[in-house]
Amino acid sequence: MTELIDYLGAFADVPEGERRLAAATRELLERSVMPRIADLYESSAFPSDIIPALAEIGLFVGHGPEHDEARPGPLAWGLAQRELERCDSGLRSLVSVQSCLAMTAIERSGSADQRAEWLPAMRRGVAIGCFGLTEPEHGSDPSGMETRAQRTAEGWRLDGHKRWVSNSPIARVAVIWAKSESSAATGDIRGFLVPLPWPGVEVRPLTRKQSLRVSPSGEVLLKDVRLPESARLPGAEGLGAALACLNEARTSIAWGAVGAAEACLDMAREHTGRRVQFGRPLAGFQLVQERLVAMLDDLISAQLVARRLAELKVRGALRHPHISFAKRHNVAAAQRIAARARALLGAEGIITDRHVMRHMANLESVATYEGTDEIHTLILGADLTGLSAFR
Amino acid sequence: MTELIDYLGAFADVPEGERRLAAATRELLERSVMPRIADLYESSAFPSDIIPALAEIGLFVGHGPEHDEARPGPLAWGLAQRELERCDSGLRSLVSVQSCLAMTAIERSGSADQRAEWLPAMRRGVAIGCFGLTEPEHGSDPSGMETRAQRTAEGWRLDGHKRWVSNSPIARVAVIWAKSESSAATGDIRGFLVPLPWPGVEVRPLTRKQSLRVSPSGEVLLKDVRLPESARLPGAEGLGAALACLNEARTSIAWGAVGAAEACLDMAREHTGRRVQFGRPLAGFQLVQERLVAMLDDLISAQLVARRLAELKVRGALRHPHISFAKRHNVAAAQRIAARARALLGAEGIITDRHVMRHMANLESVATYEGTDEIHTLILGADLTGLSAFR
Amino acid sequence: MTELIDYLGAFADVPEGERRLAAATRELLERSVMPRIADLYESSAFPSDIIPALAEIGLFVGHGPEHDEARPGPLAWGLAQRELERCDSGLRSLVSVQSCLAMTAIERSGSADQRAEWLPAMRRGVAIGCFGLTEPEHGSDPSGMETRAQRTAEGWRLDGHKRWVSNSPIARVAVIWAKSESSAATGDIRGFLVPLPWPGVEVRPLTRKQSLRVSPSGEVLLKDVRLPESARLPGAEGLGAALACLNEARTSIAWGAVGAAEACLDMAREHTGRRVQFGRPLAGFQLVQERLVAMLDDLISAQLVARRLAELKVRGALRHPHISFAKRHNVAAAQRIAARARALLGAEGIITDRHVMRHMANLESVATYEGTDEIHTLILGADLTGLSAFR
Amino acid sequence: MTELIDYLGAFADVPEGERRLAAATRELLERSVMPRIADLYESSAFPSDIIPALAEIGLFVGHGPEHDEARPGPLAWGLAQRELERCDSGLRSLVSVQSCLAMTAIERSGSADQRAEWLPAMRRGVAIGCFGLTEPEHGSDPSGMETRAQRTAEGWRLDGHKRWVSNSPIARVAVIWAKSESSAATGDIRGFLVPLPWPGVEVRPLTRKQSLRVSPSGEVLLKDVRLPESARLPGAEGLGAALACLNEARTSIAWGAVGAAEACLDMAREHTGRRVQFGRPLAGFQLVQERLVAMLDDLISAQLVARRLAELKVRGALRHPHISFAKRHNVAAAQRIAARARALLGAEGIITDRHVMRHMANLESVATYEGTDEIHTLILGADLTGLSAFR
Repeated sequence: MTELIDYLGAFADVPEGERRLAAATRELLERSVMPRIADLYESSAFPSDIIPALAEIGLFVGHGPEHDEARPGPLAWGLAQRELERCDSGLRSLVSVQSCLAMTAIERSGSADQRAEWLPAMRRGVAIGCFGLTEPEHGSDPSGMETRAQRTAEGWRLDGHKRWVSNSPIARVAVIWAKSESSAATGDIRGFLVPLPWPGVEVRPLTRKQSLRVSPSGEVLLKDVRLPESARLPGAEGLGAALACLNEARTSIAWGAVGAAEACLDMAREHTGRRVQFGRPLAGFQLVQERLVAMLDDLISAQLVARRLAELKVRGALRHPHISFAKRHNVAAAQRIAARARALLGAEGIITDRHVMRHMANLESVATYEGTDEIHTLILGADLTGLSAFR
Repeated sequence: MTELIDYLGAFADVPEGERRLAAATRELLERSVMPRIADLYESSAFPSDIIPALAEIGLFVGHGPEHDEARPGPLAWGLAQRELERCDSGLRSLVSVQSCLAMTAIERSGSADQRAEWLPAMRRGVAIGCFGLTEPEHGSDPSGMETRAQRTAEGWRLDGHKRWVSNSPIARVAVIWAKSESSAATGDIRGFLVPLPWPGVEVRPLTRKQSLRVSPSGEVLLKDVRLPESARLPGAEGLGAALACLNEARTSIAWGAVGAAEACLDMAREHTGRRVQFGRPLAGFQLVQERLVAMLDDLISAQLVARRLAELKVRGALRHPHISFAKRHNVAAAQRIAARARALLGAEGIITDRHVMRHMANLESVATYEGTDEIHTLILGADLTGLSAFR
Repeated sequence: MTELIDYLGAFADVPEGERRLAAATRELLERSVMPRIADLYESSAFPSDIIPALAEIGLFVGHGPEHDEARPGPLAWGLAQRELERCDSGLRSLVSVQSCLAMTAIERSGSADQRAEWLPAMRRGVAIGCFGLTEPEHGSDPSGMETRAQRTAEGWRLDGHKRWVSNSPIARVAVIWAKSESSAATGDIRGFLVPLPWPGVEVRPLTRKQSLRVSPSGEVLLKDVRLPESARLPGAEGLGAALACLNEARTSIAWGAVGAAEACLDMAREHTGRRVQFGRPLAGFQLVQERLVAMLDDLISAQLVARRLAELKVRGALRHPHISFAKRHNVAAAQRIAARARALLGAEGIITDRHVMRHMANLESVATYEGTDEIHTLILGADLTGLSAFR
Repeated sequence: MTELIDYLGAFADVPEGERRLAAATRELLERSVMPRIADLYESSAFPSDIIPALAEIGLFVGHGPEHDEARPGPLAWGLAQRELERCDSGLRSLVSVQSCLAMTAIERSGSADQRAEWLPAMRRGVAIGCFGLTEPEHGSDPSGMETRAQRTAEGWRLDGHKRWVSNSPIARVAVIWAKSESSAATGDIRGFLVPLPWPGVEVRPLTRKQSLRVSPSGEVLLKDVRLPESARLPGAEGLGAALACLNEARTSIAWGAVGAAEACLDMAREHTGRRVQFGRPLAGFQLVQERLVAMLDDLISAQLVARRLAELKVRGALRHPHISFAKRHNVAAAQRIAARARALLGAEGIITDRHVMRHMANLESVATYEGTDEIHTLILGADLTGLSAFR
């Protein structure tokens, strides 16, 4: 089975050492989460009890720019994200937000004290972090944010409203981005570390989601929030600091989408190979084979793109439009694969316990956050043509 | 707004009389269901309290082959289905199953006594009907059904297992299809009217659906079910009697899909016209306009196909592959439109209260039941080429 | 065969009188052109000898705004364009340029003298007209044209360079659009009637075309061209006068595309029904049926859109974005159909004598001229959203 | 420029030695063929004068199973095919037929005498070979071939009709496949080496092609052709010997398609970056960027698939369905890219001298020969599901 799903051997030559994190992740999830994932999804619940095990495996780790022997390499990291999302996009989201966004922000832009205070606890999973960038009226264009940070005698005062903040309902620390001046200059954007709970900060869980139900998300309302100067991330000046974190998360998404896609193709193969209509397994009909092959086609290119992304990073040749390419390509491929799997499972495919529709629904969020198809198209278009078409 | 959504005037010249049923349906749903549809969907609940009003309007009516002055014409009926599904595919499903499947089966194939016993009560909504054709192992190929009807001294004994029986959890009567001989000949398929509850019949509601959550669906288990001869539909000999009912339901689906699609395009236009990013409403960007125009393109062809279907019926020129064409085309168009709307609404689009993802999820069932894309492709292929490729 | 290709009866209820022009066109082309169309295409030759017959049938007729009893109605006209392009897009182009562009411009904007001088000769096919709007550097945005018309003592002096002027190598009269001032205001655009040949006007035939090879096209170079005031179209002030003609031509294209598409589907059905591989006609395989059904799907929507266009015009409800919709939709549908037919004909499909690749190649021009997909998308986007995204 | 077109660095880490053959090929073609390729295409002429140079570079080489130090490795070979088809698919076809089909057949299945007689001459380009497998009525299913080989006293007698035989009009030797018995068993298929000209063999050039016009193709008619036993390829028993050659050619096609696609994307970028409409280069508009990015998306996956194919071969892990995957995927990607480039070049794009439509037309043949999309879908479907759906 493994051979078929890695049909072109995209990962066949990955050295053993680079597979260990993924194998541990898979083992954990198949044992502890898969048996109850449908229940969790139905009840919009996050399996908080596995956080220590995720930490133990080593999935909570910042992705700062400095070389770090202890950090998994790009390939090992990517393969683990693939395993997380093979189970559920929400689990990969938890890890992406914790590691790629919150911990990376602290590692990149935090002071020595901040790093010492938060990173060890986050690594152990004792503290979960969240990342408040998006606002109700500012998604694709974060530079338009309205959250304000004003200097006060004792430090800073934050006011604003963040939305779609993954992990926020279970977080002990929030990285909050705010403009320090009322001007529109994005250079005035700064990052703050806000322990939770904290006076003036209200976290409202988002409910009635039809996607990513296993991922706790929320709104973060900031009203006259007083913070000392030591809460400011000293290295975060301008939107670039936030975008650097997004690039790490987007890389993880590109890898995760491969896992969700593989899960869907696996289920479609299994179902059509077993179910007989008109005297033959569905998988024996031309129309069904065409759909399976279309899924394989999408999957293989996503696998090869993910693999290449890791190689570019190792070679030091990775530029941020490469990540845009991979995020856009792989999520769109996974969406097509999930929709085909849903259809191939027929009526059964709408039942939560058959998983395909959960993946299909989850991928709607995955396609939206960290840059929509349109945003990445314009990033790539600008890189390819030298002309910005954003406005 | 109306003008834009009926962009090519597909329904602009429909006479007033043919619009009345649709107008009444829309008025009822906007008043009584739309304000709570998201709640109903979240809790998988059907608004049973509107059944009397649906009956009052005249939406419960059989579609037998005889001319019936009281029955709405094909255009009036279709426009009403469009309004039902503009609200929710589950409401249209309720009406399709009640009117096109259960009542049509009784009207077409029932004895005078059966018609007198059931049709008035069904018309008033006092009795809801369901239609048990599909089985766990027999969907696309109903001729393979395993449910058996054996003659007994007193009449018949039924044994079998039906699944995906819409309305069954609230039904007072079930039309059950069974083979009267163990041979594979489809000519042995017969229909029975089973009042509910009834000894030996167990209805198990289907839960954990991620689609059509407002439509009550269930399994119907038949174990040593004893029925008098008078329970048999005398006019139902062979699978053809069931397929004739399916054709009516498929016609309704083709119309309903237009309504779901229109709702999605409406919401996408509204959202993108209002939400500003990069200093402009989203609707003012080329990429967004392209998506809106692609949706319009899909919508217009679906509208024209629905309209043409009604004209063919009025002219007496409607053949069943025409219906296959329309069901397949319109549902696929609606699926693409819903997916685009979901994406255009961004993160907001995953929230139940924004409706688009509900429509998108519902259409997965609509695409599956009453003939998948593949089945209708092969029906059309056979008609177009004269060669059957089913096996 | 006719029944199958008009699968949903889009034209089944067209009254006899409205079919006459199309029938005469078809009869003429099947007899006089189809037997040599592949030869003509191979040698890039136009069958000038059929011009009198086209005239005789009544295909050379202006489409001015005034009611004209002698002019075929929108449905009759459309059905005839469909027959022309069923044979070759180049023939439909000849008629579109002669009737919809050149004669319409004269009928709409010409003086009584101009109409009397040119229209009868054009109607009889004695004079072929062309329409010089596009320039080498100005296609999608004609308002940027560089051709200049300067007032002189005796009338006007024209200087400029028109390109992609269909019919120009065989034309006796050219409608030339030019800016009368150097300002950018499009209100300064005026139309002129230039008899050919004429001092200072050079027509250079375009060669080495891989599309529309049967349609003579050329460049028109204007160098110090002196014209009397009487050569100016008095009713043509601003780009609107030219655009009104384009709308007529675009309508013809929307209808013509249906004919090209039907020809391709016909050939694909014929070929796959006859050719046996693996012991069965190709048309008996699921994969082939799916492609045929996809073509049918595209064809039916194009047919319904064309039909609706005629109905909107008859009702006086036609707006120019409707035409943009139809041109864009129908040509794209025809392109997909032609590409599928090409593939279904296998290796044979690349031979000119099998026609499908000629249609496929022709449609590349048809998709480009009179507004690309992108331009019509933006016209529709502006109409749908109220926001222009052209710049 | 190179960096952008190899956007994800699919070939960035290819060692210098593996690039040499491609570099020499590119240099030759840019100097000797590109300046006249449009003329050649217009006149359906093959530039025979470059055959010695192609030979000199080392492009005429068999791909038998034995290790051969002199033969370029899979990566070097693939990169050279990419350069050939960047110029024209017909040039790549010449080389594929010569090297992958004819020479490989002789190398794999020929006797020592046959190899000594033909391979050196073919390597030097003194003898061009062709490969007669396809027949007028047998394309996708070559096992149905009607060409017969009968034993005679002196050897063999061949009768039959081969079609779509690339290179045949300029060939000095033909590999002809024939059934030695009238039974349907494919095990009876044998290969023969027929020197050209030869009594009873007539080669009729195929004309009026709208695709691959630079590639000389023909029909080979065999009527009472008498051959000695020594003309038979002793190692060629059964269709498998022919299919082994096809796999080599398909690999070359998968690589060649990348080159054609790159040429098209290059031209589209160049054109849209230069042409200004509405006050901006086309490349600065969102709709144009989306098309360019869609092309890039397709290109990158094709590049990665080609690269992976070479790696699988080097690792000894290449199976024939992998090649089917790559041929199908890469040609379809190239077709979409060429069609988009054609459209982006607007009216100019139909002129032969602008190259894009030549590539687009060529790819129709490339998509058809050596296995259509449908055939490779079924090969992959069978491999993926374990169920054959060919019949």
